[in-house]
Amino acid sequence: MSKGLDHDTLNENVKKAQYAVRGELYLRASELQKEGKKIIFTNVGNPHALGQKPLTFPRQVVALCQAPFLLDDPNVGLVFPADAIARAKHYLSLTSGGLGAYSDSRGLPGVRKEVAEFIERRDGYPSDPELIYLTDGASKGVMQILNTIIRGQSDGILVPVPQYPLYSAAISLYGGSLVPYYLEETANWGLDVNNLRQSVAEARSRGITVRAMVIINPGNPTDEVYQQNIYQDARPFLSARKVLLDMGLPVSKEVQLVSFHTVSKGYWGECGQRGGYFEMANIPPQTVDEIYKIASISLSPNVPGQIFMGLMVSPPKPGDISYQKYVQESNSVLESLRRRAHIMTNGFNSCRNVVCNFTEGAASNRNAFSGAMYSFPQIRLPPKAIEVAKKAGKVPDVFYCLKLLEATGISTVPGSGFGQKEGVFHLRTTILPAEEDMPAIMESFKKFNDEFMEQYEEHRGYSRM
Amino acid sequence: MSKGLDHDTLNENVKKAQYAVRGELYLRASELQKEGKKIIFTNVGNPHALGQKPLTFPRQVVALCQAPFLLDDPNVGLVFPADAIARAKHYLSLTSGGLGAYSDSRGLPGVRKEVAEFIERRDGYPSDPELIYLTDGASKGVMQILNTIIRGQSDGILVPVPQYPLYSAAISLYGGSLVPYYLEETANWGLDVNNLRQSVAEARSRGITVRAMVIINPGNPTDEVYQQNIYQDARPFLSARKVLLDMGLPVSKEVQLVSFHTVSKGYWGECGQRGGYFEMANIPPQTVDEIYKIASISLSPNVPGQIFMGLMVSPPKPGDISYQKYVQESNSVLESLRRRAHIMTNGFNSCRNVVCNFTEGAASNRNAFSGAMYSFPQIRLPPKAIEVAKKAGKVPDVFYCLKLLEATGISTVPGSGFGQKEGVFHLRTTILPAEEDMPAIMESFKKFNDEFMEQYEEHRGYSRM
Ligand SMILES: Cc1ncc(COP(=O)(O)O)c(C=O)c1O
Ligand SMILES: Cc1ncc(COP(=O)(O)O)c(C=O)c1O
Repeated sequence: MSKGLDHDTLNENVKKAQYAVRGELYLRASELQKEGKKIIFTNVGNPHALGQKPLTFPRQVVALCQAPFLLDDPNVGLVFPADAIARAKHYLSLTSGGLGAYSDSRGLPGVRKEVAEFIERRDGYPSDPELIYLTDGASKGVMQILNTIIRGQSDGILVPVPQYPLYSAAISLYGGSLVPYYLEETANWGLDVNNLRQSVAEARSRGITVRAMVIINPGNPTDEVYQQNIYQDARPFLSARKVLLDMGLPVSKEVQLVSFHTVSKGYWGECGQRGGYFEMANIPPQTVDEIYKIASISLSPNVPGQIFMGLMVSPPKPGDISYQKYVQESNSVLESLRRRAHIMTNGFNSCRNVVCNFTEGAASNRNAFSGAMYSFPQIRLPPKAIEVAKKAGKVPDVFYCLKLLEATGISTVPGSGFGQKEGVFHLRTTILPAEEDMPAIMESFKKFNDEFMEQYEEHRGYSRM
Repeated sequence: MSKGLDHDTLNENVKKAQYAVRGELYLRASELQKEGKKIIFTNVGNPHALGQKPLTFPRQVVALCQAPFLLDDPNVGLVFPADAIARAKHYLSLTSGGLGAYSDSRGLPGVRKEVAEFIERRDGYPSDPELIYLTDGASKGVMQILNTIIRGQSDGILVPVPQYPLYSAAISLYGGSLVPYYLEETANWGLDVNNLRQSVAEARSRGITVRAMVIINPGNPTDEVYQQNIYQDARPFLSARKVLLDMGLPVSKEVQLVSFHTVSKGYWGECGQRGGYFEMANIPPQTVDEIYKIASISLSPNVPGQIFMGLMVSPPKPGDISYQKYVQESNSVLESLRRRAHIMTNGFNSCRNVVCNFTEGAASNRNAFSGAMYSFPQIRLPPKAIEVAKKAGKVPDVFYCLKLLEATGISTVPGSGFGQKEGVFHLRTTILPAEEDMPAIMESFKKFNDEFMEQYEEHRGYSRM
């Protein structure tokens, strides 16, 4: 008799879901690491794993919240600044029982209020804490919303190509259909509206109801989770919500929008803490309640992560004891990220058959992207390499990335995991390795790539494989 | 045109899911609280929210992990004991980048190893860290496994009645069918195997494939998440896994089992930290990999919660600086819980038409249950009350619990949220209010209940409603 967790009996949607960021490449990298090989994990934006230090102030506050008994310790002032102590008291006063108590399933009301104030300051429009739900990172929020929308295979979700694979994976998991729309690499990864219309029409002709559209675009400073990662002043971050509200009535009251944010990105990079929120606009109250109910099933998002979110939206202010240090630490992360983006872009561009352009948002006219935390160079694979890959049963960019991994220890994600046009190949890497390691990494990449190209370029007509 | 998040277009499974612990009663309680009424939240086992203090040692360790810069501070020894400092260094060494880095999606390998060692010590059988996945609390793990098993409406999951409503909610959410099996209130909430067989047969006759069975039973010391909440020595905790392995071949290698644990319960009560694990037995490797893949979509469980789990399974040992204090704090929580269970049981039993028995596990012969963290008294509602409730469109026990809430501020969960036999009514409350508040709470309950019964008992033949 077959059993509940036998593989052939599992939920097919679970089996179908693919998650490239931790897919075949990551698994092979983990194996190699176990065998003792030094691996540089650039598959996922995980800055602290590559040596980025946490910002001091938020860590002090959360440490004190974890150890509230320190607040009565006469020596606490020897190891914590007064503003961190005050802030810890503030957050503890927002909880009902400290970090050890479940919060409301939407998150602590006091933190949701701080988020609303942040959004209001940022966008210039009031924001309602009742429409802000805190989550265990942005991923959980995205999954919850997709689960709410998707009823079955004929529900389609528009997702950009390239995308972040969370979206494709979650859409499969919940049994919906991904409807791709292509971003134009040659036009700074911009959106061609006709192209979008065509995607919708094509999906509808297949009987798909297009239910929602995912807006993420790392070559464009509206990508919400990267709102802090803007490396120029000419085009500051512009939230989708502000764009919507700027359009005025009736659109501003009609278009449904859910925006996600996280403590994982920006200069915080606090990925392991799992803090995030989503804000809803123009969502009917009954739906808002259903989302609350589903959040309730897992009781509450982790409370320390909520406090990180609160701190991220209300960092130290000018005049606070910790202000100088906070600004200096933040800038140093951002400036280093920017320098690393340049080193990486230049490195890729010095390689045969690799094309990668730098973007600091659309202020740059070059076709994207190294930016935010990632680089997405196009790799022009020779026909011979494509052929050998196919013979080995591998998607060509997977083949390339596996070879790269084995040769150098650099763990990237093949472009096919993010989506790319037929016959065009990329790899995605983060720009997060420590700045001092960057030159050596790029050199090792170049050596591998140039040998690979040497081996497979047609006019050389031989193969050592 | 209808939009993606319009209520009438949502995923029906989302709308169908009910979660009683934070259902109608909780929502009304939250409203009353906003209006300024003092509410005693006993709807969910959330000890810190009702004044339980966290254990000092684990909080010291996690605080230090949050603030690793303190480890180099010459004054750190003034506020943290040496064993907490050593332990923080140990856990930081298990991460790759501290608490701010995503861990592997299954959790930190070093913590999974500590969990395996704990299970091995506890059960006397080796345990494999590769089969232990860390989660954001037990709830998330349970949801993940159910999502993996359930393919559609004709997949049934056996769930005890009374149950913990996480199970019914998650089964609805994933579109499966709940197959109830009844625990016998008059037999210490024991399981009658014939009864279970009947449930299975009945489900099969309706075309349901019974895919899994949930084993939770607060009147019986095998409930995994309450393994620390055993208030007697005669029947110590016995894990389902040990029972299985004790049965020997072939059963011990055949029956698939997933066991869940959490830092939310026991004497820790660290609900807000969201730490948990599940351990798999006899699950095929391919399935184990699918579960890993799905866990990857949300990247990683929160890392501080993982460290709490590590600490829970490897607390201070005799001879450690913090050992005495840890034991004393733990015992004081457990002893107080036990006293509170007695106060509550006695209080309920002094009320008209209320029957509640104390259990310390099956060592007691009384029909259950006040135990673990909960009390589940039966309320014998007079026919008149049932009639009035039905006229008001309420399930009778919901009606009773709402009246209780309005009159006293005590927020409980109606027994119908957990399941109960037709015509039998209960309420569920935690035993967690502070010990010193207990007598007043029970008095206020008694006053309400006796007036309620006074009002509705037939021979009084009048109604003031
Ligand atoms: C576009 C985007 N959204 C969401 C996430 C995940 O964020 P979180 O850690 O908050 O789940 C990432 C992580 O790389 C991302 O790139
Ligand atoms: C039987 C049972 N399982 C799981 C949970 C939830 O635990 P967690 O906080 O780890 O999600 C509870 C909480 O009350 C419970 O009673």
